[in-house]
Amino acid sequence: MKDAVKLTSSRKLDHLRICAEEDVECGDAGFNDIRFVHNALPECDMEAIDLSARFLGHTFSSPLFISAMTGGHPGTKDVNARLARAAEKFGLGMGVGSQRAALEKPDLKDTFSLVRDEAPHAFLVANLGAVQLRDHGIAWAEKAVEMIDADALAIHLNFLQEAIQPEGDHNAVGCFAAIGELCRDFKTPVIIKETGCGISAATARKCWGVGVKAIDIGGWGGTSWAAVEAVRAGKGRSARDKALLTLGQGFAGWGIPTVVSLAEVLATGGPVIASGGVRSGLDVAKGLAFGADLCGMALPLLKPAMESDAALAHAIEAVHRELTVAMFLTGSARVTDLRKAPVHL
Amino acid sequence: MKDAVKLTSSRKLDHLRICAEEDVECGDAGFNDIRFVHNALPECDMEAIDLSARFLGHTFSSPLFISAMTGGHPGTKDVNARLARAAEKFGLGMGVGSQRAALEKPDLKDTFSLVRDEAPHAFLVANLGAVQLRDHGIAWAEKAVEMIDADALAIHLNFLQEAIQPEGDHNAVGCFAAIGELCRDFKTPVIIKETGCGISAATARKCWGVGVKAIDIGGWGGTSWAAVEAVRAGKGRSARDKALLTLGQGFAGWGIPTVVSLAEVLATGGPVIASGGVRSGLDVAKGLAFGADLCGMALPLLKPAMESDAALAHAIEAVHRELTVAMFLTGSARVTDLRKAPVHL
Amino acid sequence: MKDAVKLTSSRKLDHLRICAEEDVECGDAGFNDIRFVHNALPECDMEAIDLSARFLGHTFSSPLFISAMTGGHPGTKDVNARLARAAEKFGLGMGVGSQRAALEKPDLKDTFSLVRDEAPHAFLVANLGAVQLRDHGIAWAEKAVEMIDADALAIHLNFLQEAIQPEGDHNAVGCFAAIGELCRDFKTPVIIKETGCGISAATARKCWGVGVKAIDIGGWGGTSWAAVEAVRAGKGRSARDKALLTLGQGFAGWGIPTVVSLAEVLATGGPVIASGGVRSGLDVAKGLAFGADLCGMALPLLKPAMESDAALAHAIEAVHRELTVAMFLTGSARVTDLRKAPVHL
Amino acid sequence: MKDAVKLTSSRKLDHLRICAEEDVECGDAGFNDIRFVHNALPECDMEAIDLSARFLGHTFSSPLFISAMTGGHPGTKDVNARLARAAEKFGLGMGVGSQRAALEKPDLKDTFSLVRDEAPHAFLVANLGAVQLRDHGIAWAEKAVEMIDADALAIHLNFLQEAIQPEGDHNAVGCFAAIGELCRDFKTPVIIKETGCGISAATARKCWGVGVKAIDIGGWGGTSWAAVEAVRAGKGRSARDKALLTLGQGFAGWGIPTVVSLAEVLATGGPVIASGGVRSGLDVAKGLAFGADLCGMALPLLKPAMESDAALAHAIEAVHRELTVAMFLTGSARVTDLRKAPVHL
Ligand SMILES: Cc1cc2nc3c(=O)[nH]c(=O)nc-3n(C[C@H](O)[C@H](O)[C@H](O)COP(=O)(O)O)c2cc1C
Ligand SMILES: Cc1cc2nc3c(=O)[nH]c(=O)nc-3n(C[C@H](O)[C@H](O)[C@H](O)COP(=O)(O)O)c2cc1C
Ligand SMILES: Cc1cc2nc3c(=O)[nH]c(=O)nc-3n(C[C@H](O)[C@H](O)[C@H](O)COP(=O)(O)O)c2cc1C
Ligand SMILES: Cc1cc2nc3c(=O)[nH]c(=O)nc-3n(C[C@H](O)[C@H](O)[C@H](O)COP(=O)(O)O)c2cc1C
Repeated sequence: MKDAVKLTSSRKLDHLRICAEEDVECGDAGFNDIRFVHNALPECDMEAIDLSARFLGHTFSSPLFISAMTGGHPGTKDVNARLARAAEKFGLGMGVGSQRAALEKPDLKDTFSLVRDEAPHAFLVANLGAVQLRDHGIAWAEKAVEMIDADALAIHLNFLQEAIQPEGDHNAVGCFAAIGELCRDFKTPVIIKETGCGISAATARKCWGVGVKAIDIGGWGGTSWAAVEAVRAGKGRSARDKALLTLGQGFAGWGIPTVVSLAEVLATGGPVIASGGVRSGLDVAKGLAFGADLCGMALPLLKPAMESDAALAHAIEAVHRELTVAMFLTGSARVTDLRKAPVHL
Repeated sequence: MKDAVKLTSSRKLDHLRICAEEDVECGDAGFNDIRFVHNALPECDMEAIDLSARFLGHTFSSPLFISAMTGGHPGTKDVNARLARAAEKFGLGMGVGSQRAALEKPDLKDTFSLVRDEAPHAFLVANLGAVQLRDHGIAWAEKAVEMIDADALAIHLNFLQEAIQPEGDHNAVGCFAAIGELCRDFKTPVIIKETGCGISAATARKCWGVGVKAIDIGGWGGTSWAAVEAVRAGKGRSARDKALLTLGQGFAGWGIPTVVSLAEVLATGGPVIASGGVRSGLDVAKGLAFGADLCGMALPLLKPAMESDAALAHAIEAVHRELTVAMFLTGSARVTDLRKAPVHL
Repeated sequence: MKDAVKLTSSRKLDHLRICAEEDVECGDAGFNDIRFVHNALPECDMEAIDLSARFLGHTFSSPLFISAMTGGHPGTKDVNARLARAAEKFGLGMGVGSQRAALEKPDLKDTFSLVRDEAPHAFLVANLGAVQLRDHGIAWAEKAVEMIDADALAIHLNFLQEAIQPEGDHNAVGCFAAIGELCRDFKTPVIIKETGCGISAATARKCWGVGVKAIDIGGWGGTSWAAVEAVRAGKGRSARDKALLTLGQGFAGWGIPTVVSLAEVLATGGPVIASGGVRSGLDVAKGLAFGADLCGMALPLLKPAMESDAALAHAIEAVHRELTVAMFLTGSARVTDLRKAPVHL
Repeated sequence: MKDAVKLTSSRKLDHLRICAEEDVECGDAGFNDIRFVHNALPECDMEAIDLSARFLGHTFSSPLFISAMTGGHPGTKDVNARLARAAEKFGLGMGVGSQRAALEKPDLKDTFSLVRDEAPHAFLVANLGAVQLRDHGIAWAEKAVEMIDADALAIHLNFLQEAIQPEGDHNAVGCFAAIGELCRDFKTPVIIKETGCGISAATARKCWGVGVKAIDIGGWGGTSWAAVEAVRAGKGRSARDKALLTLGQGFAGWGIPTVVSLAEVLATGGPVIASGGVRSGLDVAKGLAFGADLCGMALPLLKPAMESDAALAHAIEAVHRELTVAMFLTGSARVTDLRKAPVHL
């Protein structure tokens, strides 16, 4: 058991390094197929554009959401601290990575709790796998929320990753029931979140049905966990590694493109965070135009977060600048005006 | 006549080598145009997924079918033995290559009969060309079945290959009548099988009409016999070789893509084996989702079968693993559940 | 005047060389977008396939037509003689190149009349530009027919080429009236033929209206006269050459693709020769399947015709072989059966 | 203030150099998707083709319009003089570049007024940014017209460029009202002109509504100001330069393709100048066929205008030649006949 916990924790660091250094993106989230109709006479003041967005009763300074990435290993503290400081500074929402490791091994807690320390006013989202929820019940959910004094709890669905990893949990039975139970009794709002394969209309309907409060798309076209596992396996030489490599490559194309998933989920309800392959302020604008409430980025913020506060601030400012220009050129004074901006498909 | 028999036999070895060593694949079977809709909450247990499939009253441990490849030359014995042992071990169905050579020259029989020796419990499919059936009648069909104690008899249609080979049989008249006669009188179920050009709806309807029991698509997008002949001819320098090269290249694009043919045939009836360009467990899953009962692979199993039992086992396990993951991620506990899995086209 | 005649004649040789040696093909005639539906049980005998075709009351041994190319310069005699011998040997129809030079300078006549000498039984088509017809009247038409004892007279429309050449005839007025007059009074059937830009439905309707007996598509996607002129100009350095180069490149994309033009013209009537970018026996089969009566090739026969009788025979045999296989695999015993062969678009 | 004026003026020279030397074109204006239907029997005389066009009550010798480019810096005089002489010689309309610099600093006036000196009979279009109009009112509009004795005044909309430049005017409020006021009171006809992002149907409707007399598309697919700014920034190394580079690259794809914008605007009224990515006489012909009254070119005329009168004349003649051939081959004797020429999309 101890070894398994160590594995969970050290894998976190592995993933961080691979994601930062190797090519783990795959496919096309669909943003390139959307073009805004230029408004040559926008009649609005770019300097007065209001980026503030509302989601789950909270007001954010911008619709950019820092998607769940890390925590659970001492080596991830710096990254998490920088992300948290940026969330605080820019008034962004932020999700932490899966808290499983810290729930299994409490002395890892501070790799998560520092996030709240650094971002006392930010909207923070706790993070737990659906499998862990099923296996450990509401107790873990409560602990996860408590650990960072979270404003919401994301239950992530990552069965592609689980299925590919030989050590993964290959049984999904009972996860949906556990989500239903959680939603019935829990005070903190529950978000359902994919991690790169997207959510279908059918899955979304099931989730709304049991009281899920928001869906985070996590669609295909950005970071691919199949690609990450393929890269990890490609470094080894055993038959097991070769099999894992093949499997990872085979499923790098699996998933619902973010824009397709967004359309599917929005047809069933909301609110929704668009994420997976969001790569620029223009992509954020497109996600919002399609109807998303917030747009999440993980990978594009990882590299600068590993570097410095300044690099991360630059990256976020670039997104805001591009989003602002897109809003200006469609005559959108507020983020919600983007929904009325005409687009060519 | 003796020389012709020798030719048939030695060509078998030639083909095996060319297929294993050269690029003889051409086109696109269509599987890449199909995407499963990811089920983020599959509610099934991957370890409990049941790969068993039924076809012609028989139960297989998996829907993977080893398509007809070889036999008929002493040098093909090893390959056939390995394929047979894999069929036995993994509970797969298997077709042998054309038995013509052994019917013409009985001392080659053991290159086929060893298949039954190695796979005493497997569902084995005997194999005869439509032209041989027409020319030699039910007698040969009976002998072919007997030779391997077959569970079914595939009559293969390969008129593209016949047409391109100067020594091929260029007359197709009477083949359909022969198939009709065979189906009327034969106890063993008759399968009609193409070898890389696919079956149209019209041809399928004619076949069901005379009592054919199953169709094996053998569609375009995988091994191309036109390409094989072009490679063979490309090694020579005579005017005849040059003409054959041109002709082979000209017809490498000829045929109905497997997925198109599958849709056409399934609209007319079944059961159906999808084959031709099936290259992974994901392709198998897609074929099943489209309605196929089994999915056949030839070329991808050839190279490992020429290497060792272990290599072949690895290849088959990789297919099973990928198929299992695809079933898991669409929430399909049984192979037939895949037919209900939603797909994007 | 003498100089102009010399120019006409020497340009002929220039064109022949450029077409044989440089890349003068441009675009896509559309044949690649057509796929035959494979007939796995064709029930016909390939050796008994009948390639004979009828057109303007004549029976040809094959639907392959040798499109108008040359004559008019002593250096073109060999090529014309070889083409003629092939037409005679294989029972093909053949068009000669524009007879203008020989009509302007009678001692060049034998470069055309030898075609009849070499092909006493072939269906030969005389050739005159619409501009020459307008300027010289029926007298020249009669002389052109007489010169080769022609079975039909093609009036070619080549206004792209005329427009691009500074020395070209830039006035098209009166050409249609001249065609109308010719058709009224002429005993020999009149064919209207483009030379690489195709015929639209509107033009076809006008032609049928005045008594034109057949249309030769000459569509875009094969030899491009704009490309030929660009190559010619690219060899010079004068401002005039540079302007011509730009103009030639600018119009290399101009024209109606052969398959599109074929569909347009067939919607208005027939018979029709499909030509322009026909590059193989498979293309011939596709043209026939679309409804053409004959299919013409120019450029692909030029190189072998410049080489030897044997090379030309090989090229023609390759076309016939490929056409025959395509007919076999669609179960078409006669050329007209191809019209019923199903195709995927 | 003085520095700002200097900046405006020197930036002009910068832009000229960058546009002439670097790759500042981006995207696809859409002309390649349009194909004329060839008219094989055009029945018109190419030498008699009439290129004259009418626009705002004026008759031009050709529908080619020299789009607004320069003036405002002593170093731009030569270019402007050459463009003006060409306009005079070929009877073309011509727009001057933004007159802002000369309105801010009157001793730069002659860089514009020489245009009228060199082109005493040409239709000249004065040029002012919508922002300048709003800030300085009709007084500046009158001065701009007066400065070159203009026949019309173009108010350019360039908010993408303004938004990207940190020193740009980021406030669009009031511009539309200013345009409305101008149109109410001004004797000289007012043209609304984009500079590379195109005009939507909605914007066009607003403009016609307040009395705008013509729209100049300035669509996406030609010179991209985002690309120009990216190139400018790419030469620097500061954080500001890096941010500008990212922003410029991010918006190089922004805008309505010229052909799409043309269709949108023409659905709401006219007259219209098609511009943005017009690159040849064939593009001019396509713009006219789509319904434009004139077609404007900027960048393709810049390089020859920087070279010599002769180079510029050659460029213009090449456009006229290609346009003439296109008219000939569609049987269009006059520019307005092109609107009836059938096209394939
Ligand atoms: C290094 C890394 C670690 C991640 N860890 C988690 C995690 O623990 N929990 C989770 O829900 N998602 C996790 N994700 C998924 C992201 O939250 C996001 O859904 C996904 O990466 C798609 O967004 P992207 O394309 O912008 O990276 C992780 C992503 C990255 C790159
Ligand atoms: C080496 C080789 C030999 C084959 N021999 C036969 C044969 O004798 N009879 C037959 O019906 N099909 C034969 N086939 C065709 C296959 O059964 C199958 O229909 C075709 O190769 C398409 O499948 P693939 O793309 O997976 O290779 C052969 C294929 C290969 C590669
Ligand atoms: C070298 C050469 C010379 C040609 N000369 C003539 C000609 O004199 N008269 C004519 O009607 N077409 C002429 N053509 C056009 C062809 O008859 C044919 O319409 C055109 O080349 C398209 O066919 P292809 O793509 O098979 O070459 C000539 C073509 C070539 C290649
Ligand atoms: C060097 C240069 C300077 C320009 N300056 C102006 C200007 O001052 N005012 C204006 O309305 N447009 C200006 N334009 C935009 C052009 O008028 C035109 O709308 C645009 O370049 C698209 O046309 P093109 O693709 O043919 O270059 C300029 C373009 C260039 C290339």
